[in-house]
Amino acid sequence: MKSIDHIGIAVNNLNQAVEVYKDILGFEYLGEEIVEDQGVRIAKFNCNGIHLEFLEPISNDSPIKKFLETKGQGIHHIAYKCDNIIQQIELLKQKGIKMINDSPKEGSNNTQIAFLHPKSTIILTELIQGG
Amino acid sequence: MKSIDHIGIAVNNLNQAVEVYKDILGFEYLGEEIVEDQGVRIAKFNCNGIHLEFLEPISNDSPIKKFLETKGQGIHHIAYKCDNIIQQIELLKQKGIKMINDSPKEGSNNTQIAFLHPKSTIILTELIQGG
Repeated sequence: MKSIDHIGIAVNNLNQAVEVYKDILGFEYLGEEIVEDQGVRIAKFNCNGIHLEFLEPISNDSPIKKFLETKGQGIHHIAYKCDNIIQQIELLKQKGIKMINDSPKEGSNNTQIAFLHPKSTIILTELIQGG
Repeated sequence: MKSIDHIGIAVNNLNQAVEVYKDILGFEYLGEEIVEDQGVRIAKFNCNGIHLEFLEPISNDSPIKKFLETKGQGIHHIAYKCDNIIQQIELLKQKGIKMINDSPKEGSNNTQIAFLHPKSTIILTELIQGG
């Protein structure tokens, strides 16, 4: 967990988020993608090497939809780069950290990802390798 | 708003946050401070130049206490470095961004800070100069 890769932000309206962060605040816009597995449409921005990822739910069982319903719009998770995600997961488990994903899942752009449980890390935390 | 300075995270128990992020996850611990003006005790960590700031309320009228009561523990705000905070505030206001602080306030460590209203920026956003 050497550096921050991105910050995930749950929003009700992705177009509005793009308007604010691209057109008004002037962040570098990296484009949009859909991640079916998480049930989200994502708009990405670059801020000096760290990405802001705005997440709008596109399905009723999206975890982002549940987050919005209980907490409202806000920062959903922090993702940290790591070099060897399998080793990192094992190390965290040995230290007593509860994982949501015991083994890596395929993320977007050829990444491997795994989520740590907020019961252990207070906030939802993601490991990401590659990309 | 050239780069991220820190991410503020609201927690119920600062000692537990320090235990997790210092002792278990191994982040570089920068120490603790009290900011009376915001009614918080803060524990700071470094992650490759970006700080994680865990915030525990120490007064009943702390905005962090209100956040915890309505949303629970979670990421509270993102702070961006800027070179000329007075100019930046004026520019944002010209663009129609609603400010919580129309003029800079004194932050910790000789910084000047100002908050942007989440009605404009979706999430609570801070400008920080110096430090």
